Amino acid sequence: MAHGPRPPRSAFRFAHPLRVRWSEVDRQDVVFNPNYFVYFDVAVGEYWRAIGFVYPGVLGGQSDLFAVDAHARFFAPARYDDELEIACRTTRLGRTSMGVELAVFRGDELLTIGELVYVHVELASRRPAPLPDAMRQTILAFEPSPPGEG
Amino acid sequence: MAHGPRPPRSAFRFAHPLRVRWSEVDRQDVVFNPNYFVYFDVAVGEYWRAIGFVYPGVLGGQSDLFAVDAHARFFAPARYDDELEIACRTTRLGRTSMGVELAVFRGDELLTIGELVYVHVELASRRPAPLPDAMRQTILAFEPSPPGEG
Amino acid sequence: MAHGPRPPRSAFRFAHPLRVRWSEVDRQDVVFNPNYFVYFDVAVGEYWRAIGFVYPGVLGGQSDLFAVDAHARFFAPARYDDELEIACRTTRLGRTSMGVELAVFRGDELLTIGELVYVHVELASRRPAPLPDAMRQTILAFEPSPPGEG
Amino acid sequence: MAHGPRPPRSAFRFAHPLRVRWSEVDRQDVVFNPNYFVYFDVAVGEYWRAIGFVYPGVLGGQSDLFAVDAHARFFAPARYDDELEIACRTTRLGRTSMGVELAVFRGDELLTIGELVYVHVELASRRPAPLPDAMRQTILAFEPSPPGEG
Repeated sequence: MAHGPRPPRSAFRFAHPLRVRWSEVDRQDVVFNPNYFVYFDVAVGEYWRAIGFVYPGVLGGQSDLFAVDAHARFFAPARYDDELEIACRTTRLGRTSMGVELAVFRGDELLTIGELVYVHVELASRRPAPLPDAMRQTILAFEPSPPGEG
Repeated sequence: MAHGPRPPRSAFRFAHPLRVRWSEVDRQDVVFNPNYFVYFDVAVGEYWRAIGFVYPGVLGGQSDLFAVDAHARFFAPARYDDELEIACRTTRLGRTSMGVELAVFRGDELLTIGELVYVHVELASRRPAPLPDAMRQTILAFEPSPPGEG
Repeated sequence: MAHGPRPPRSAFRFAHPLRVRWSEVDRQDVVFNPNYFVYFDVAVGEYWRAIGFVYPGVLGGQSDLFAVDAHARFFAPARYDDELEIACRTTRLGRTSMGVELAVFRGDELLTIGELVYVHVELASRRPAPLPDAMRQTILAFEPSPPGEG
Repeated sequence: MAHGPRPPRSAFRFAHPLRVRWSEVDRQDVVFNPNYFVYFDVAVGEYWRAIGFVYPGVLGGQSDLFAVDAHARFFAPARYDDELEIACRTTRLGRTSMGVELAVFRGDELLTIGELVYVHVELASRRPAPLPDAMRQTILAFEPSPPGEG
């Protein structure tokens, strides 16, 4: 969790590599904070692809996942041209929502940690719907430590 | 605070109006979540300008403010062309850091609430430095409810 | 046109004011060039709103406008917090496409000039369709110098 | 050139692969046009890296390259998750400026073509300065067809 202890790189089975773009740094010569949330979004999409859940096709157009909570803590800045890894794991699988932890590493150095919470929503009713069972099983099969159910 | 109760529009003395840009909405036809953090950044800058603290000139080039924590909860989506108000107030004034609460309103409807924590850093040493006294006094003079000191 | 002479501020009946955001400048402390195209997009939308053509509602969902050409020349940089005007006028009204000229002013200083070409496309067939007559008339009624038909 | 014939993929010795991000597509479900200029910027940086010219370090802090002209033509849209190649080559080497051609391919399909013109500026005087000879030689050694000098 974004409030808890800082996880090591080895806590994550999946990480997405990317290089910091010119457009992502600011006058302070560091990655502008909203862009970490763009990185998180890219990494979650790649994580889902890696485990075999290709968003959004797998949801069949009847439902979608919406971010309802986004949090990040910034420990050290990333700079232009840095090669980063955006590590990602599911930390919570609820009935209709799930929590994903993100961690930005430059080598072994943890620069930023974040958390996104997604709710699964049925589009017709705009109401929360149970997470697709295939998604739940796919995540449980992939993650070395089982996500909480809280 | 982003974890606390939802504040009404009247809790904020300052708000910055803006209209949602085409570039800020996504395939779901809602503002993409990282863009709320761009809105927060715009609003904090305008809040500081409104109270008479013009960033970054006032810091004199010897120090700067860095975001160390960013959090948002999304209750309802904003859409293309929506006219929003990004309300902003200082909720915590520590020795070297401060907390700012942000709230995105569409009329009286609260769409998103967020919090940013800034640390004041001396550039030469890269270490936290006491908040400039002028900044502290300016904020205390402006805010109807005194920020916490925690 | 972007290749022609530099127009004065008085050549434009419409301009949209905006202030440069922190997220829009780069390590060189100038607006990063792709963001001028975001400004152009914002200004065209506001220009259409100002003349009474509210995109995209007016198209009724059957067709849409797509940018097929985008060009800008950069004469002098805009910086963080600059107050700019993005001037906009229609310079060409063809059968299925139109050209819009954009000019970024800081006071009377012309910083950037650009041109966008839009094609009106019927969504079902994905083919160009005649510009809506109401749009054509609205533009002709607004512009002090009649756009070319080339 | 952006006005000339459409080059095939084989005309480019260098191309940078990337996947379209969620943040880069719009309500029309296509890459929003300013983001192609972000892709161009990423590709030029990678092109320079690939040929051994690592921007901006190689310029030694005394000078910099500024984009003075940006142009793109859009033939077909890229969509979320598309795997693209951003091909890049130097098409013109002047005394103080150079032209770079960009082409966005999805497989063999040319989606977008663009051109950027950069001027080499001495930072102290803010005046154009001759392109560094090492840069010129590096580009000439890499490009299969010699760039024009116009």
